Amino acid sequence: MARYREYDAVKRIAVLGTGTIGASWCSYFLARGYDVVAWDPAEGWRERLTAFIDTAMPQLRDLGTAVAKEGALVTADTPEAAVAEADFVQENAPERAPIKQELYARIDGAVPEQTIVATSTSGLILSDLQGGLGFAPRLVVGHPFNPPHLIPLVEVVLGKATDPGAGAWAHGFYGHIGKHAIYVNKEVPGHLANRLQAALWREAVNAVAEGLASVEDVNAAVAQGPGLRWALMGPHMVFNLTGGKGGMRATLEQFGPPIESWWTDMQITPTLTDDLKAKLIAGIEDEMGDRSIDDLEHERDTRLIGLLKMLRATERA
Amino acid sequence: MARYREYDAVKRIAVLGTGTIGASWCSYFLARGYDVVAWDPAEGWRERLTAFIDTAMPQLRDLGTAVAKEGALVTADTPEAAVAEADFVQENAPERAPIKQELYARIDGAVPEQTIVATSTSGLILSDLQGGLGFAPRLVVGHPFNPPHLIPLVEVVLGKATDPGAGAWAHGFYGHIGKHAIYVNKEVPGHLANRLQAALWREAVNAVAEGLASVEDVNAAVAQGPGLRWALMGPHMVFNLTGGKGGMRATLEQFGPPIESWWTDMQITPTLTDDLKAKLIAGIEDEMGDRSIDDLEHERDTRLIGLLKMLRATERA
Repeated sequence: MARYREYDAVKRIAVLGTGTIGASWCSYFLARGYDVVAWDPAEGWRERLTAFIDTAMPQLRDLGTAVAKEGALVTADTPEAAVAEADFVQENAPERAPIKQELYARIDGAVPEQTIVATSTSGLILSDLQGGLGFAPRLVVGHPFNPPHLIPLVEVVLGKATDPGAGAWAHGFYGHIGKHAIYVNKEVPGHLANRLQAALWREAVNAVAEGLASVEDVNAAVAQGPGLRWALMGPHMVFNLTGGKGGMRATLEQFGPPIESWWTDMQITPTLTDDLKAKLIAGIEDEMGDRSIDDLEHERDTRLIGLLKMLRATERA
Repeated sequence: MARYREYDAVKRIAVLGTGTIGASWCSYFLARGYDVVAWDPAEGWRERLTAFIDTAMPQLRDLGTAVAKEGALVTADTPEAAVAEADFVQENAPERAPIKQELYARIDGAVPEQTIVATSTSGLILSDLQGGLGFAPRLVVGHPFNPPHLIPLVEVVLGKATDPGAGAWAHGFYGHIGKHAIYVNKEVPGHLANRLQAALWREAVNAVAEGLASVEDVNAAVAQGPGLRWALMGPHMVFNLTGGKGGMRATLEQFGPPIESWWTDMQITPTLTDDLKAKLIAGIEDEMGDRSIDDLEHERDTRLIGLLKMLRATERA
């Protein structure tokens, strides 16, 4: 890792693509004291970015994430100019390989020698994007979770051409700035967290498809039940506490066989037919009642901030 | 429902079986102002029950769940005596059909005519337990989530012989006392919430089995990511907000196809071999470090109470 920058020497971060994910990253980096050079090709992007940051920064201050000396935002007219003096790059272009490949080709000569480039891609396989790039060894997946300025998780995935030292640098850097980075050791569609989410949703969709419960009751079956624990610990740690004093070993002995039999009973992969889609949409509309998407987003962010504050206040030393 | 008791006329609740689940129910009912008549066949159960209640009651007061006039605990020497004057019965015998069937046969003549009996069973099919019972129409599943005095969810499931009015009574009564009751419309192994939990765990086990990530990183992939949202809303509502202003419809259009392709890629059901079990146990021990199960339980309950307080404080009117 010696050939990459010391974390304390990182002063300026380039953010390429400033949709929801990119704008959220900008806010986070600014709050953590980094100067941000942002670029986006869309018309009116500067105004939308500024509006996003104006909403996000008070949340980050409230949360205690923001440092005393926040960074400054600069905007660039080209991606080449954005990365030219960047100590780290976070790329958030649309999720289509040709778009990202074209962008990478443009910045290839401009990224400084020691600078790591992380892509926020959730759906693409990094190895498919590295061909022919001079900075391929320094290109890594740094996949955040929405909204990235609030949710700690960042998944770090290396492509075939990625230098392991560059992966380690990115993993360490995210931790250095207060995110929770994990390694996903293989390139699989959806990385890890989205696959876990898709696995839960598969069964949630099945429950509606098979008439086991209403959309609202399926939601409550998580949010009023096991979901309350998943905010505090992951699924393996939950099962570690299911076994009483005997921990995971006792859980596996006592609950392993019934859970394996449920798994056998849970082999159906639903098809999202028009009928099923209509059921899901109607069920959600029932549950929403008079609340708009904006109301729900506001409620989610308020509660997410409350949750993160509580978790921080109860962290063990 | 007219032939069942008015909720306000319920004064005394019998709790049969006072292991972890039963003791937790006792605490909850007492906190809500109900007198509890408890019975258990094990030696030393009274002392263990009292000790549990002594820990749980301060939590319920702290949480604001306890009412001004808490109930009184009485213990009974037989299940028949416990239910004889009970306005509601919550049964928490061990999860083996013969044990529950024997218990039901004993109380069959003693349960008052208007009294609903709910079983906390997580793994048994209610219809298999109802044969030949006089109170079968009033026997319903009321499955809580551990720890029941803190987690709001109660799954209500009717057996073939259950009177729908009795099911509705139980569903309403749990709501009346501050739990969040849902209907599970079919009798399937594990009801709903445990199946959802098993679906997530299946993929979490696969991730370890296939070397995708360490046990600790899989845990973080949930608890530092989507788990934070599942404490606030269920999986369908999460996807309703994934689609931006377009809601569930937009999510299904944009993310339906990729998620369906991940589902196809996620067909493996792991077998809990000795090797895999050893990996899960070793991974959890790594993550636990110097923390004991007691430490982790204490941490979970403290944070769970903090989380529930925050949710209550941010409830919309």
